[in-house]
Amino acid sequence: MSGKMNAVVKHHRGPGAELRKVQIPEIGDEEVLIKVKATSICGTDVHIYNWDDWSAGRVHPPYVFGHEFSGEIVKTGEKVINFSIGDYVSAETHLICGHCPQCLTGQYHICENTKIIGVDTQGCFAEYVAIPAANLWRNPEEMPTDIASVQEPMGNAVHTVLNGSVAGKTVAVIGCGPIGVMAVGVAKAAGASQVLAFDLNEYRLNLAGKMGATTVINSAETDPVKRAKELTNGHGVDVVCEMSGHPVAMDQGFKMITNGGRVSILSLPAGPVSLDVTNDIVFKGVQVQGITGRKMYETWQQVSRLLHSGQVDLTPMITHHFPLEDFEKGFQLMNEGNCGKVVLHP
Amino acid sequence: MSGKMNAVVKHHRGPGAELRKVQIPEIGDEEVLIKVKATSICGTDVHIYNWDDWSAGRVHPPYVFGHEFSGEIVKTGEKVINFSIGDYVSAETHLICGHCPQCLTGQYHICENTKIIGVDTQGCFAEYVAIPAANLWRNPEEMPTDIASVQEPMGNAVHTVLNGSVAGKTVAVIGCGPIGVMAVGVAKAAGASQVLAFDLNEYRLNLAGKMGATTVINSAETDPVKRAKELTNGHGVDVVCEMSGHPVAMDQGFKMITNGGRVSILSLPAGPVSLDVTNDIVFKGVQVQGITGRKMYETWQQVSRLLHSGQVDLTPMITHHFPLEDFEKGFQLMNEGNCGKVVLHP
Amino acid sequence: MSGKMNAVVKHHRGPGAELRKVQIPEIGDEEVLIKVKATSICGTDVHIYNWDDWSAGRVHPPYVFGHEFSGEIVKTGEKVINFSIGDYVSAETHLICGHCPQCLTGQYHICENTKIIGVDTQGCFAEYVAIPAANLWRNPEEMPTDIASVQEPMGNAVHTVLNGSVAGKTVAVIGCGPIGVMAVGVAKAAGASQVLAFDLNEYRLNLAGKMGATTVINSAETDPVKRAKELTNGHGVDVVCEMSGHPVAMDQGFKMITNGGRVSILSLPAGPVSLDVTNDIVFKGVQVQGITGRKMYETWQQVSRLLHSGQVDLTPMITHHFPLEDFEKGFQLMNEGNCGKVVLHP
Amino acid sequence: MSGKMNAVVKHHRGPGAELRKVQIPEIGDEEVLIKVKATSICGTDVHIYNWDDWSAGRVHPPYVFGHEFSGEIVKTGEKVINFSIGDYVSAETHLICGHCPQCLTGQYHICENTKIIGVDTQGCFAEYVAIPAANLWRNPEEMPTDIASVQEPMGNAVHTVLNGSVAGKTVAVIGCGPIGVMAVGVAKAAGASQVLAFDLNEYRLNLAGKMGATTVINSAETDPVKRAKELTNGHGVDVVCEMSGHPVAMDQGFKMITNGGRVSILSLPAGPVSLDVTNDIVFKGVQVQGITGRKMYETWQQVSRLLHSGQVDLTPMITHHFPLEDFEKGFQLMNEGNCGKVVLHP
Repeated sequence: MSGKMNAVVKHHRGPGAELRKVQIPEIGDEEVLIKVKATSICGTDVHIYNWDDWSAGRVHPPYVFGHEFSGEIVKTGEKVINFSIGDYVSAETHLICGHCPQCLTGQYHICENTKIIGVDTQGCFAEYVAIPAANLWRNPEEMPTDIASVQEPMGNAVHTVLNGSVAGKTVAVIGCGPIGVMAVGVAKAAGASQVLAFDLNEYRLNLAGKMGATTVINSAETDPVKRAKELTNGHGVDVVCEMSGHPVAMDQGFKMITNGGRVSILSLPAGPVSLDVTNDIVFKGVQVQGITGRKMYETWQQVSRLLHSGQVDLTPMITHHFPLEDFEKGFQLMNEGNCGKVVLHP
Repeated sequence: MSGKMNAVVKHHRGPGAELRKVQIPEIGDEEVLIKVKATSICGTDVHIYNWDDWSAGRVHPPYVFGHEFSGEIVKTGEKVINFSIGDYVSAETHLICGHCPQCLTGQYHICENTKIIGVDTQGCFAEYVAIPAANLWRNPEEMPTDIASVQEPMGNAVHTVLNGSVAGKTVAVIGCGPIGVMAVGVAKAAGASQVLAFDLNEYRLNLAGKMGATTVINSAETDPVKRAKELTNGHGVDVVCEMSGHPVAMDQGFKMITNGGRVSILSLPAGPVSLDVTNDIVFKGVQVQGITGRKMYETWQQVSRLLHSGQVDLTPMITHHFPLEDFEKGFQLMNEGNCGKVVLHP
Repeated sequence: MSGKMNAVVKHHRGPGAELRKVQIPEIGDEEVLIKVKATSICGTDVHIYNWDDWSAGRVHPPYVFGHEFSGEIVKTGEKVINFSIGDYVSAETHLICGHCPQCLTGQYHICENTKIIGVDTQGCFAEYVAIPAANLWRNPEEMPTDIASVQEPMGNAVHTVLNGSVAGKTVAVIGCGPIGVMAVGVAKAAGASQVLAFDLNEYRLNLAGKMGATTVINSAETDPVKRAKELTNGHGVDVVCEMSGHPVAMDQGFKMITNGGRVSILSLPAGPVSLDVTNDIVFKGVQVQGITGRKMYETWQQVSRLLHSGQVDLTPMITHHFPLEDFEKGFQLMNEGNCGKVVLHP
Repeated sequence: MSGKMNAVVKHHRGPGAELRKVQIPEIGDEEVLIKVKATSICGTDVHIYNWDDWSAGRVHPPYVFGHEFSGEIVKTGEKVINFSIGDYVSAETHLICGHCPQCLTGQYHICENTKIIGVDTQGCFAEYVAIPAANLWRNPEEMPTDIASVQEPMGNAVHTVLNGSVAGKTVAVIGCGPIGVMAVGVAKAAGASQVLAFDLNEYRLNLAGKMGATTVINSAETDPVKRAKELTNGHGVDVVCEMSGHPVAMDQGFKMITNGGRVSILSLPAGPVSLDVTNDIVFKGVQVQGITGRKMYETWQQVSRLLHSGQVDLTPMITHHFPLEDFEKGFQLMNEGNCGKVVLHP
């Protein structure tokens, strides 16, 4: 398990990435080495690939990026006790400090000192990846490797949707990228009576329909607030899952929410957002939740159960598979938006 | 709308009931008169019919009993503003005081001064029933009258199951009478990954299977606690819905619950129940909830949406229909236990 | 109880108000007539007095304004059953519809069709006021009339502070107008370990100190975010009660909140507010709550108990008393900001 | 730091204990050695000392018992990163597995594989104790060593009282042993409007009064249910903290709770408890909570803040101090019940 491996390397401070031969990682006492079976491309990876302002301020090329994966343990550090060689695993990508007030009170996902695998450390767009044992999640043997790889972003969807009740409610998912369409599936599985999916992109709206949306709405063609009100006898939706990051769409979410409703925001708007706090939050008695990461590890348990039971079937939204060396095709598709999840196989 | 009507009357302080011609009820300023289209038999009605200790201490024959129904408004009191002649309605059966601490804090279902329609007042086993407008629930036009009639007991099931989250969890329903099998359907619709149904009666277990139980367990043949542990990797179930009222079955529920789990009790054991508080509640950190009635009217909203959307289909559990005058057949079936819900049509 | 009475009338569509003789109100079947003992000036009344854009779009002069009061029932409508002549009462000021989804689910304070006493109907700056019995709150006999009058705004403070736990936490109150300083007292009584009070006005900061703030911070002189961090080992405050309505102060609240904290907004910013949703809400996993009115009547119960037990003493913040006819002095003080609560006595 | 130390050893399988010279403990890589400054006697220690059935089935003499303490770190294992020699600490006594479903979902206090320091491992009735760094809690420098020692049991009180809201409510504490009287202080600090303390022992009731009970009730002399109802206008108390473990007292708690109230049980009844589930839990819509241990480490944070701020002053309930070698006096006092907390100083 020493020697070289193929890896997709963010090689310089500019657009693009390169397939390179790099050293197989060493592992520490409390880490394991994993042979990667499937690794999927996240929107964050696209930011790094494209080299936007955020990535220029955060990452340090050259390094291996990527953080969503599934694989098999091939080596264990000497202090690792609950995992063994041969175990089929994925990983939580937040590396936490364990001693800030949030960690001390079990809110690990908002640890003040969070680092992210593949962003702040070496990642998994490679044949092998080293991961702390504390971050591993054991997969059921029969779970396909591509499904297992996308559990991490599905965790974002589950965290957002299930951060309050949805049974018997009308849920709006605004923004139908991969996490958005997973949120559609989760809301449906968790008993939402209506799931309204909003986007501007017909490919994505089509995926949302396949994942169980009861109504898909192209916000470029139909007034989304008016349509949401029509579908709820004029009262508005009970829950908004904001996954677009677009200020206009976010504002529409606040306009379509019913009095006392919940707006859970997973998206990361690029700049400040102007909100009508008085009319859309205060008078309505609305609850707004910032959602980041996954509850460690309650969310992983929920993801695993929803997938294992067949309640959520992610097959329709994993639209493309490539060998690792064809990563460029994957990034091109992601930039065009005409895809669900793209999975690479080292 | 004056004159006589057919009604099933609890005619004396002893077993049985009689079909009689009685006066069509007068209505007050804030009441409506409803032509009953369907009325279903509740376990409480069976207690009154059989004349057990509870009913001997509570009800005052002769009077018309029955409290689950659907029908059409044929007359409205002069102060009634939100309902009109022709409206298709059912009714919440708790008559509340409005001024006790529970009513003042919105917990109407546990009003200190609750009276129950058909128990403490004239009921709906009749061609017409008078109901306060404040207790009406408007039904969607396309909802069949038998389904609309059983919304009240379905409310008990919804209140029990949804009094905490079930998405991605294992839910045990102990006791598969009509409300139990409805609870199975609700748990499934609300995203439970596993729904385990327990009873001693094969007819009822068969209904539980039709309503969506992932495993049905005859507790007379299989050790229920052992089986529940096997199905949960030894950890126990996340949620117990206790609907049997039997001390042994209730204790089994506390033995099969996982640490930190929720035990929601809707059943009414006839005597004191002996519990191992130390090991089954305290050390496990279990949450026990007493459930009574329906949240007014949050539960009705949930029931209506789950039915209207098709998420829960009650058709399999409404097993028998009779004309009102054949009520004796219905009570006989209920006493034998080989039925789901029995609906009478005046 | 017929004839004329003194009343402060919003007499025209412009600044100011007039003391006039008007007809004592008639009452309906479900209303009572109250002899007003004390009536306090709310910020809303100041807006109406000053005739800002909001009031120009909402109220219809000439009419009697004012909505905070205490008094004695002198006449009851014939359908009123729980209140009698001589009862000492105050009133909830939200008049609700009772049939919207929010009312049906017990969220009366965010009723879609809310009207407000003294804004949309005749108010209490008068010798007598007519109030629906459903809105009455019975006061303990020994409660002073001025304290009883300000229970309604104290309800806003209680609703904001107690909409989550504060025991053992650091609570920031931003904006020390009358409701802000009441919030300071409530947070202290409910077990907050630190209560930080922020304002620009020394008079108000002094009141905040008298009501129990552990630290008062003049945001014009001290960097409020830096100071809040210093007082919390750099982690930020657990709860922000936003009561300033000022966009800069609101943003400061979002900057000083700790990861996973709660920002409860009672204030009504005059225009849109620009927020850094990504960094201040999403990454921090913050919960934002819009707060309006008072939970009917859970909040009133809390207010009554906190006052009656002596846990909160409002005496220091009721700074001025005038006879009703000197209302101009009260409005002048309120406009200058150098006061706590101003009470008028008809 | 090698050599011998004084320790109170549970020396045989029978009543009593012995002061012995034993080896100062070795520490592992992730442990620290602590010089004990104060160590307090828990009810559990009394069970072990007296050698009841529970202890005969659980502990393995000879070993050093005791688990409540404060002290100074004198040596650190080589993997310990957040603590240093000289640090002033106490410790959480639950040793958890980290990989059961409860640990994975942040419910460490109900870990399926919990071991307890001083019960299942060597304890702190000694000059030195070895503790895993993961279980340490850092104390403020100015906190007295006896107060710091009793934070662990105070955590039980805090966990029980604050497992729901108490602000503006009436809280009944049933059983005024050391944890009970701490619960009185916590309920008072957290804003309970009334705190009713029940016991049979006047010494303890006197302590409850000193800790802030608004009413103390000797249940041998006064009907506790009747008195609780009188003090709540006949409605019953909002929260019961059951800390007696006595079936009769527990049943009284269920009789005095109001509809919709919370009964939080920390006590460990020796045998099964017979409850009127139908009338006292179901019809009342009561919530029953099993409470064990302390939330790790949310409860410790709450304890630390409530003490550090001066909101709770434990001085009155630490009634006795002895040198370690006089431990027999402490156990005698505890067996007699005429004490609050007894602290030993090595």
